[in-house]
Amino acid sequence: MSTPLHQGLEAHFTALNAFLNQQEECFEPEVRPMFREVLAHPGKRLRPLLTFGSGMGNGPLPPLVRGAAIVELVHLATLVHDDVLDGADQRHGAPTPHRMHGAHAAVLFGDALFAHALVLASEHNTSEVCAIVARASRDVCSGEVCQTFARGNTELTLADYHRQIRMKTAVLFEASCHVGALLGGHNEKHIKACAQFGLHLGVAYQIYDDLIDLLQDTAKAGKTLGTDAASGKLTLPMILERNRRGGDPAGELRRGLKARDVISHDTWSECFRILEAEVTAAEQVLQPIHGTASSDFLHRLTAYLRENNRKLSSAS
Amino acid sequence: MSTPLHQGLEAHFTALNAFLNQQEECFEPEVRPMFREVLAHPGKRLRPLLTFGSGMGNGPLPPLVRGAAIVELVHLATLVHDDVLDGADQRHGAPTPHRMHGAHAAVLFGDALFAHALVLASEHNTSEVCAIVARASRDVCSGEVCQTFARGNTELTLADYHRQIRMKTAVLFEASCHVGALLGGHNEKHIKACAQFGLHLGVAYQIYDDLIDLLQDTAKAGKTLGTDAASGKLTLPMILERNRRGGDPAGELRRGLKARDVISHDTWSECFRILEAEVTAAEQVLQPIHGTASSDFLHRLTAYLRENNRKLSSAS
Repeated sequence: MSTPLHQGLEAHFTALNAFLNQQEECFEPEVRPMFREVLAHPGKRLRPLLTFGSGMGNGPLPPLVRGAAIVELVHLATLVHDDVLDGADQRHGAPTPHRMHGAHAAVLFGDALFAHALVLASEHNTSEVCAIVARASRDVCSGEVCQTFARGNTELTLADYHRQIRMKTAVLFEASCHVGALLGGHNEKHIKACAQFGLHLGVAYQIYDDLIDLLQDTAKAGKTLGTDAASGKLTLPMILERNRRGGDPAGELRRGLKARDVISHDTWSECFRILEAEVTAAEQVLQPIHGTASSDFLHRLTAYLRENNRKLSSAS
Repeated sequence: MSTPLHQGLEAHFTALNAFLNQQEECFEPEVRPMFREVLAHPGKRLRPLLTFGSGMGNGPLPPLVRGAAIVELVHLATLVHDDVLDGADQRHGAPTPHRMHGAHAAVLFGDALFAHALVLASEHNTSEVCAIVARASRDVCSGEVCQTFARGNTELTLADYHRQIRMKTAVLFEASCHVGALLGGHNEKHIKACAQFGLHLGVAYQIYDDLIDLLQDTAKAGKTLGTDAASGKLTLPMILERNRRGGDPAGELRRGLKARDVISHDTWSECFRILEAEVTAAEQVLQPIHGTASSDFLHRLTAYLRENNRKLSSAS
């Protein structure tokens, strides 16, 4: 959590951690250790960053902190379920709930986390926050169902891929920004710009994540790579390479060939072009709120992603 | 669905079915067949009965139908997850989503169902319906986590048992009544009476269900019985019998001894006394709204449960 991205938001994240820790009391005593465990090994807290970034301005901090907690809890719930379904033993360097407590308790705990996120969303007077968060959650899960059904489908189109990553990742980025801008008391123009930014950034982030899965060393990324191909999941480089030369690049990767040998130079270049275009689109939708604290902060995120793209691109 | 309980509510259930069928459009094309499958083999729709019963009066039907759909979808989501966790192949005489589409898709589909219930809840202007439904859902899942952790614990107390069944079953009955009374436009007195009724009826219903698990023939109940003891779950008769004579009645059942031989006559009597007391408590909390359509209808439910208790009692 101590990346350059979090600079200047130390107070926000201190408040967020305190708030999240307090939520433990809302669960039965048996459930609390599971809750403490998932909080003890946080990831990058990207979604709270989006909420804080979109909400910053003159408004009070507590509503933003609650908003950030809501989107982080939804994200954590999906991770808990993903880890059960993938049989993953580790996440952020710590044993997963599934590993610690079994699939049974982990699935139900994920449900409870998700439900608690919506309890917090319902503390807002109008049902607007609930609607945003529930819709995004439904789309995330539907997107993951689609991805599950698509496993092993070597004919997945570029349009299918875009729909999947939009649903499984980008809509929660969009919701994180939307909730932040709303709870920060901003106007419609600001809310719309931030929400659109989140959608584009989410698409870019998922493409980046899919590229990392093929390109970066396990040691650096802290997770096992090449897992997409192994699980029959087609990602952007595999689809573009297949479209370019035919054959079954995903199958070649699954048989152990190296990504750098399977995917051509032209395909990598095209992937990075698509990724860059999405980052640029994210920046462009911020035009209407140019000069605001939110816009400046959200540009920091795109700059950071650009920098990482450059590093990854040089490894391709 | 064509029990005497549903008499007079034919229009309500026709509207509910139509409304539920329409919701299919809110899911991605890949998810829709799963949604159709869970709707095609409905259970008794007890929770919608509670919503309609608590809400009936002079208000319009559509808000009640939405409320009934919300609580039924939450219930269906928990069933989908339960069936994955129990590896159940059949539910209401049809293959489960888990059986048809695998654990992966079924867990994610359950999440999407639950999220969609909250999308519908957020269509109410205030966040009240969201709050009721999200809280109840959190408690249901927390209660199931507690029950999971308690498996194989031969020292489970009566208080533990009551806490578990309150959370895993009764709070959703309570929420079903609460949402119904609220969306039916009733006053605070009515809402409170109905919510309390739901809580008591839920406790009674779960005790009844636990007794059935030990007493009724498979053929009659349409599901495999004696499953609680087999899975290490202690229920009321086992706890009371253990408290009475010591030993490990649950272990005896697990080893294949018949419930009628393991559990003494006095223990069965005590179980039915506790169950009857809960049904009576449910009726008593309706006193303040005596004479209303809701009260009359909800009394039909307790009469029905009493009648079933009597039949089951004569089998003990």
